[in-house]
Parts: sequence; C-alpha cells; structure tokens
Amino acid sequence: MKEYPLLQQLNNPKDVMALPAEKLPALAEEIRGYMVDCVSRNGGHLASSLGAVELIIALHRVYTDEGDRLIFDVGHQSYAHKILTGRRDAFRTLRLEGGLSGFPKREESPYDAFNTGHASTSISAALGMVRAKHLLHEPGHVAAVIGDGALTGGLAYEAIDDGGDSRLPLVVVLNDNEMSISKNVGAMSRSLSRLRASRGYNRLKRFVVRVLETGTVGHRMSKNLEGFKNRIKRFVLQNTFFEEMGFTYLGPIDGHDIPQMVALLREAKALERPVVVHVITQKGKGYSLSERNPEKFHGIAPFSPETGHVASSNTPSCSQVFGETLLELAQEDERIVAITAAMRDGTGLRPFFERFPDRAFDVGIAEEHALTMAAGMAAEGLKPVAAIYSSFLQRAIDQVYHDVCLQKLPVVIGVDRAGLVGQDGETHQGIYDPAMLCAIPGLSIYEPATLSELRAMIRLAVARGEPAAVRYCRGTLPEGAGEEPVVYGKWATLRPVSDVVILAAGPLVQIARTVAEKLNCGLVEARFYKPLDYGLLDEIRKQGCKLIVAEENVAALSLYVAVYCPELTVKPLCLPDGPVPQASAARQRTLGGIDEAAMIRAVQELRAFHG
Amino acid sequence: MKEYPLLQQLNNPKDVMALPAEKLPALAEEIRGYMVDCVSRNGGHLASSLGAVELIIALHRVYTDEGDRLIFDVGHQSYAHKILTGRRDAFRTLRLEGGLSGFPKREESPYDAFNTGHASTSISAALGMVRAKHLLHEPGHVAAVIGDGALTGGLAYEAIDDGGDSRLPLVVVLNDNEMSISKNVGAMSRSLSRLRASRGYNRLKRFVVRVLETGTVGHRMSKNLEGFKNRIKRFVLQNTFFEEMGFTYLGPIDGHDIPQMVALLREAKALERPVVVHVITQKGKGYSLSERNPEKFHGIAPFSPETGHVASSNTPSCSQVFGETLLELAQEDERIVAITAAMRDGTGLRPFFERFPDRAFDVGIAEEHALTMAAGMAAEGLKPVAAIYSSFLQRAIDQVYHDVCLQKLPVVIGVDRAGLVGQDGETHQGIYDPAMLCAIPGLSIYEPATLSELRAMIRLAVARGEPAAVRYCRGTLPEGAGEEPVVYGKWATLRPVSDVVILAAGPLVQIARTVAEKLNCGLVEARFYKPLDYGLLDEIRKQGCKLIVAEENVAALSLYVAVYCPELTVKPLCLPDGPVPQASAARQRTLGGIDEAAMIRAVQELRAFHG
Repeated sequence: MKEYPLLQQLNNPKDVMALPAEKLPALAEEIRGYMVDCVSRNGGHLASSLGAVELIIALHRVYTDEGDRLIFDVGHQSYAHKILTGRRDAFRTLRLEGGLSGFPKREESPYDAFNTGHASTSISAALGMVRAKHLLHEPGHVAAVIGDGALTGGLAYEAIDDGGDSRLPLVVVLNDNEMSISKNVGAMSRSLSRLRASRGYNRLKRFVVRVLETGTVGHRMSKNLEGFKNRIKRFVLQNTFFEEMGFTYLGPIDGHDIPQMVALLREAKALERPVVVHVITQKGKGYSLSERNPEKFHGIAPFSPETGHVASSNTPSCSQVFGETLLELAQEDERIVAITAAMRDGTGLRPFFERFPDRAFDVGIAEEHALTMAAGMAAEGLKPVAAIYSSFLQRAIDQVYHDVCLQKLPVVIGVDRAGLVGQDGETHQGIYDPAMLCAIPGLSIYEPATLSELRAMIRLAVARGEPAAVRYCRGTLPEGAGEEPVVYGKWATLRPVSDVVILAAGPLVQIARTVAEKLNCGLVEARFYKPLDYGLLDEIRKQGCKLIVAEENVAALSLYVAVYCPELTVKPLCLPDGPVPQASAARQRTLGGIDEAAMIRAVQELRAFHG
Repeated sequence: MKEYPLLQQLNNPKDVMALPAEKLPALAEEIRGYMVDCVSRNGGHLASSLGAVELIIALHRVYTDEGDRLIFDVGHQSYAHKILTGRRDAFRTLRLEGGLSGFPKREESPYDAFNTGHASTSISAALGMVRAKHLLHEPGHVAAVIGDGALTGGLAYEAIDDGGDSRLPLVVVLNDNEMSISKNVGAMSRSLSRLRASRGYNRLKRFVVRVLETGTVGHRMSKNLEGFKNRIKRFVLQNTFFEEMGFTYLGPIDGHDIPQMVALLREAKALERPVVVHVITQKGKGYSLSERNPEKFHGIAPFSPETGHVASSNTPSCSQVFGETLLELAQEDERIVAITAAMRDGTGLRPFFERFPDRAFDVGIAEEHALTMAAGMAAEGLKPVAAIYSSFLQRAIDQVYHDVCLQKLPVVIGVDRAGLVGQDGETHQGIYDPAMLCAIPGLSIYEPATLSELRAMIRLAVARGEPAAVRYCRGTLPEGAGEEPVVYGKWATLRPVSDVVILAAGPLVQIARTVAEKLNCGLVEARFYKPLDYGLLDEIRKQGCKLIVAEENVAALSLYVAVYCPELTVKPLCLPDGPVPQASAARQRTLGGIDEAAMIRAVQELRAFHG
C-alpha cells in the first residue's frame, strides 16, 4: 500500500475523523487511485463510486456517533465507504468468489446498515430505522444516500411521502450526478436541473421570506424593482418538490467540496427533521477516461487502467441480438415500440433509440410504470416490447398480472439477465422470475438456447399478439444453425428419446448436449416454460422414460413437468432454494449443482437406483 | 324504471349529451337512488361511486369525441359510468355471477377503456394510450380519473414523472374526496389539503404573474402591502407538486357542480398538454347514511337502504382475529409494531391504531414502501408485522425478496384475503401469492385452518424472528379447539394415513375433513406451504399412499409435494391456470374444481384407476 500513504493509516472510520481536514483532498485522490486499480482487475461499478468519494468522506466526518447509520441506495456508489470502514485490504477481493460484495452487506460489516442492490429502497429503509430508534429510544441518526436516477422509482416517492409527513429526523442525501445508468429522464430530472441552475436558491429564499416578514418590500422594490422581480419569479418557479413533500431542502452544493458538505451535513443532522441535502457530483470524477465516458464505466468488466480497454468477445451478447432483432422488426412494422427502465445500453436498445427516437421510451427506474404504460399502448393498437432485467422484473409482477395478462394485451417482455449473473451476486440473480411468472394466467414464457432461436422467438412473440416473456441470459449463447424452427408451444427433440431423457432449457442445453452424447441419453430442449409441450410430454409418458429437468433457476419447469407426469420419475436439476452469492456464473452452476458433473451424476443415479 | 324517468331515457352516452343542462342535477339524483337500490341488494363499493356521479356526468359531456377514453383508477368509483354507457339495466346484476363487474372491463363495454381494480395504474395506462394515439395519428383524448388515495402509490408518481415530461395531451382528473379507504396519510395528502384550502389559488397565480410581468407591483404594493404580502406568501407556499412535475394545474373546483366541471374539463382537454384537474368531491354524497359514515359504505355487503344495517355474523373474521392477536402481542412486547397500506379497517388493525397510535403505521397505498420500511425497522430491533391483502402483495414481491428475505429480517406479513374472494373477481383473488412466495429463499409460509391456529401462528411467526408470511382467508374459519399445537414446519395428521391421504390447506381442510370421513381417507393439514413437513412426507412415502393435495390457489403446494415424492401418485386439487371471475366463493370453488364433489371424485378416481 505504499502508493497510498494516507489510506494506509486508516483502519476504521475513527481514523478518518482524526485526519486533519487539509489532508482530505489527498485522501480522496488516493481512494480513487486504489479504486481504479482494484476495479480494473475485478470489474465493477466504477463511475458512480468515483463520483461519491468526497461525499462519503464528508459523511464519515459527520455521521460518527454511536448508532449513526448510512444507507446507500443501489449501493454501487459505496466503494469508498467500504475502503474507509475496515475493508481497505479486502477491497482487492471485490466481487470475487468469497470476497467483498459489490453492494453493501450487513453480513460483511457493521458499517453496512442495510443491504442494497435494487434501486430506490434507501429512504424507506432509513425511515424504518428512524422510526425504530424513535420508538426504542436508541441513539443515532440515519442518512439515506440516493442518486437522482433512483429518485425516479415510485418506491422512493412513497417513502418521501411518508417520511415528509413523519416529521422525524430523516436525512436524504441526494447524490445528483445528472444521470443514473443512462442519461436521466422524467419531470423530476428536469426539476433537479432547475435546482442545479440556481445555486443561490436557498439564500434567495431566506432573503425573500425575511423581506416579506419585515415588510420592507416596498422600500427595496423602489430601489431595484427589476432585480426583485426576476429573483422572485425564479423563486416562485423553483419552490421544490421536496418542500412540498414536507422536507427542508438544503443545497445544491458542490459534491467534491468536502468542507462545504461537512458543514451542510452537520446542519442537516442537527435539524432533527426531514431534510434533503442536494449534492452535485460528477460521475467518473478524477479518472479522465471515466469522466469522458461515464456510461462505459458504470458497470464494467476488467479493463486496462491506462487505456480503458475491455477485452471483448466477438460473439454478440443476447442483449445485442435482442436489440438488433427488435430494430429489424420495427422497420417492418411501425406499431412496434421499445421500452426500457433506465437500461438503454444494458438491454441492447441503444441502436433502437438512435434509429427510432419517437418510438423508444426510457421511463427511468420505473419497472411498474414501464409495464402498465405498455399495457395502455397495447390497448390502443401499438405492439410494445419492454426489456427488463429478470431481477428487476420482480418489481413489476403485479403489473404483468393485473395490467397486461388479465387484459390479454399484446405486450412482449424481454427478460434480460435471466439465469445466473455472476459477480453481481444475490440481488441480481435472474433465477426467480420463472416460478413467479408461471403462476400468472395467460402469459407465455419462451427461452432460447441459441442466438438464432432468440431472434425467432422475439419475432414469434411479437407476431402472436398476446402477453409473452422471452427470457435470455446475461452474456451470450451459441449462434445456432439448422435447429428445428421455433413453433409456439413446441419443444425440440435434439436427441431421440431414450431410457433417460434430459429436458433442458436455455444455457443448460449446451451442457445437456455434451452429457447426453457422452451417456447416450435423450435430449429435449424446453423452449417454453409455459405452455408445456403436452404432446411431447405425452409421448415421453407413453415410453415411460426417466426425466431430468435442467433449468438455470429455482424450480419452476421441473415442478410443472413433475405434476404433469405423475407416473414418471422426474429429477429436477435446478438451483436450490436459497440466495446465490457472487462468483463466476460457471462456478455458480457448480455450486448450485447444475453443471456438467452434476448432470452426469443425475443420469447415473437414475440409471443405477431406479432400474 | 318508473322511479327513474330521466335515467330511463338514457341508453348511451350520446343521450347524456343530448339532455338539457338544467336536467343534469336531477339525473345525478336518479343515478344515486338507483345505485343505492342496486348496491343495497348486491353489495359493492358505494361511497366512492356516490361521490363521483356529477364528475362522471361532466366527463360524459366533454369526452364525447371518437376515440376519447376515460380510465378510472381502481375503478370502484365508476358505477355511474357503467349506468350511463348502455349498462343501466344490467347494473342490477352488479357483482353477481355472470353479471356486471364491480370494476371497468374492456370485455364488458367499449366504453371501458382499460381494466382496473388495483390502485394507481390509471395515469400510466392513459399515458400509454396518449403515446399510441400520437404515434398512430388516431383521434381522441384520454383522461385518467384518480382518487387522492391512489395518488399515494409509487406507480402514479412514476407515471406523473414520465407524463409531465412527455408534453403530450394527458389529462389527470384528481377526484379528491380526502380519503381513499381509510383517512388519507402522507405528505401528498397534506399538500392537497393546502390546495383545497385555497380555492382562488389559480386566479391569484395568474394575477401575481401578470403583476410581475407588467411591473406594477410597486404601485399596487404601496396601496395594499399587507394584502399582497399575504397572498404572495400563500402563493409561494402553494406552488404545486403537479406544476413542478410538468403539469398545468387547474382547480380546485367543486366536484358536485356540473357546469363548472364541464367548463374546466373543456379547458383541460383543449390545452393539448399534461393537465391536472383537481376536483373536490364528497365521498358518499347524497345518501345521508353514507355521507355520515363513508368508510362503512366504502365496500359493503348487502344492506338495508333505510337503516344501513348489514346482516352480520357472530364469528369474528380472520382479519379481526389477526388484529386482536397482534394487539395482545403488542401489549406483551413493545418492539411489535403494525403496518398497513391504507387498510386499517379491512385488515382488522383499527383497534391496534387506537390503542397504540405511535406503534401503528398507515403508509398509504404503498405496499412496496410498507415492506422496505418494515425491513428498516427490523434491522434496528423492532418486530414489524405488516398486513396486506394477497392480491396487493403482488405489488411488493421484490421487497419481500430483496429487502426482507435476503437480509433474513424478522418481518411478519399478514397475507389477508388469501384464497378466493368472491364478488370482487379477477383482480382481487388471493390465489397467486403461494406460487410467487414459495420461490423466495428464506421465507416461511403459514396457513391456518382454524381461528385458534391463526392466533397460534401469528404468535409463532413473531416469536421466531425471521421472515414469515401468515396467509388467511377472507371471511372466517371454524373457531377450532383441541388441535395439535402449531409447531414450526410441522403439519397436523387429522386422520391416520390410509391408502389415500388428502393433504389440505386453509379453508379446504374443512371440506377435506367431510370427504375423508365419508370415504375413509387419511387427512393431513398442511399448516406450512414452506417449509414442507419433510418428516411426515417421508412417512407417507414409506407407506406408499396416494396423495391428493388440496389448496385454494393456483398450484404451489401440490408442485413441491409432487417433486418431493416422485414415487407417489400425487393428484393436485388446486385452481386451474386462469383468472377466476366474480361469483360467491363457494361457486368459485365449484367452478374451479376444488369443492367437496371434486374432492370426492378425485379420491374415487385415485382408487379406481391406480389400483
């Protein structure tokens, strides 16, 4: 750690407190250097964490009392917090198997007050903590650090509505970097822009109120009518959302100016009521490559710190193929529109947004709205396709049910990041959507095993004009060629039915093919989680085969197949009931018992023990 | 229809348009009379619909063009709309099997533009429609009618954020009756109160802007400084949330004054941009019993129109038992707090709110926030118990997973209205939560078959200090007495294991008992959907019984039991995959194939065909 002389001395937040104030900017620089070093090796969420370094230092100069809690929304901006709270050396293991999580984790440190990963939860959690402290007479203050992106989520609004009304000491630090993952959208974002454009806002406001209270308007007015008019107009236009919601609004201030932030955070903490501290930061700050291209460095694979270069593969990702296919379809049919919830790049929709800006909708981090709006569009004749990560789709289960499926509206959901996702860990696994979605009446659920099937499935789902979810994994799939054409509700027999048949879905088809060839089993690709291919299952039942159902998620397909085939031995090969921590996806398959070795064992056991 | 001479002439909305304006108040009275008549027979959501009669007449005087769409949030205020759009006579069948739905339904009428039932969806849907019309160059305007209660939901905020930014012609009619189901809560509600207190707000605003533009302040100021000061202060304090979010705000106006509403709605429609029209209505208006007690008449069973008397049963409901038990527990342990999402009465928590106002939290229609806040509370040492209807819990699946279960926090969810709910129909069925919740790691799922088990389960769930959902049905269960004590993870053997064993949960246990006695079967009460009682299942497996798994929901328990017992014949007796329309719960059981006759058939078939 000799490149980091200050950092080297800091073993816990008390040491941060003890550091002379004039050394803090140098500390910030060291933290940035260390962060770039580690993240370039392991990959991670760099840009947001670079932007929040001074803010986190300032927070650790103010929230130092017993029982104080810091909650980081989403959590990917919290790397400096990890480094400053006893995890400096462990930070080298960031996102590795058994290493530090990329998100706050209570199991990891007493300084991580609340686990995060999904957006917009921090204010709710903080309000719950404040209420608990209040009722239990426990000491300590709570601050929620939330980005402007996460503020577009309805959950944040629900918490602000309740929190403002509570009158309890709840500090919301708005870390405003003018973008979440993509460029921000929505009226709230415009509202914040107006605030940013008016740094003197609060001083002016105090001035106006004082003037109005003391009745000296007439006098001053005669001196400087124009100035007053302009200022009061700006004031009137800029009365903030937060004040309307019961919060005292402080800011905006420079999120890289530690002394100013410390002063304002002290004031906020001392007010003992709901306060918003509005801090302007620069995403990617202090690392020139990332300052220039913060979206690239939002979540990034290992890269060269000098050039920013990421080793890339030649095969397009599933997301890219999804985006390209949808763009092709949109050229053929003007009724097709694309929707994303703040994931233009992640979902491969960037080219669609560029080609058809009027037909592409980024609604912010608002999965619920994305799907109910899609239902409204479909009710009036559009063919909306919404791309949402599996784990975030959990936010909109009711909308899939209530708004899309009960009305049988032609909304197609591209369920991106389905299956194991690797280093992002527990909160981001796409392994629960099948069990949840299978329960929803009238929803068809597709999953391809190759890129060419993915293309065909998107086309088919859009063409059928009914509620559909097409799931596809993070990363990529084999290109595929010459498969049986995708037919609605039909699975594909890849190797003829034998004593043991492996029924596999998605990325497990590749593994199953190897195993089936080695052990001479039948192989069926389950292209639909729902509906099941009852015809093919009836065939299998007639032949009395033993079945292995392999799916890269917690049990879903296995369950329905087992119930449909009561007389067959059906062995589920799926992830166990439990969270799946960070590791490579391949390791997660091994640990979860769904890799090649596990499949081989399953076949052998079926043959050995069941005659 | 001779009591309703005006109504009798109206067969579609064009007839409403043709009626002379001076006859409209009399029409409103007739509609109210007819509504009270029908709802007193069939039960329904009376108070909100009584309050919205003039508003709906006004809407039908303005939204009369081809392609115009009205979307009613939640939809229980839309009865007058049904009566005026060709469903006057059919309205007598409201909520009956095969009759009119209590909510808007596209299948029912071309005038129902979008199905509703759950709260806060209307603005999203309307925005989707406006965008579709814009892209497809289709004619017509869209208005979303939303109550002040539904505005507390995050989905409404997400839509306002996006809609205000869209600059498209989206009219939001805020039907503000100062309460949703219970009295309203939250900062937004306070904000609306301030608006209500200032009817001249918009006139004043135009005045102030004019004064500031023309530079005549100094002059007027010298004449009447005090008056100006006070008005500008009120103005400053009341710059609305909606304007901040990009909407033109019109109102507030009297929601029972038809000409005023028609004028303002015309203005809103003509503005061709996002507009909020704020309308103040009185819930229960025009029916004195309901005006005095709107909560009672929110959703009501058949009643006497003269006295308001509802035939009541002597047995307490599950909700009441839940509320009483929680109150008892709260007296024993000060760490227990109660949370509801705008359902104090419906969830039986009213006595808790009265006894422990500081420990009872109504967060508004905000299920997501309810659970994330509960997780925050639990992280700081409280023992929160949140009561949420099963179908609304679908809104918070991700919070159960991400905030409660991944952190293993001791939050107990009372899943009210679990199972079939009867007349409210498709949108309100509590039949999907088991399939969704079973997929979530670390969540225990309890379901009692008697009231005394319900008491024991709530106690046990709270005492265990881990994530738990206790499901219980609408209405009541047998009191129960002398059952085996409730032990975590253990089912109860009610009749010894035999050739056929019925494994039943919740309200189906009663039915199963009758059948088991008649046909001499074994009977096991599945008290936990999760974890399964593996010990007992192993016993059953050893004995090689045939199993019927009876659950009042779409397949969940059956699936996991079938997979755990691959060598047994397991017959699921659950609801088929599909929505369940309105009827009595008993009829829904029959139609869904889970009543006594179906169970008898299942036993007989198992015995006949499987030796």
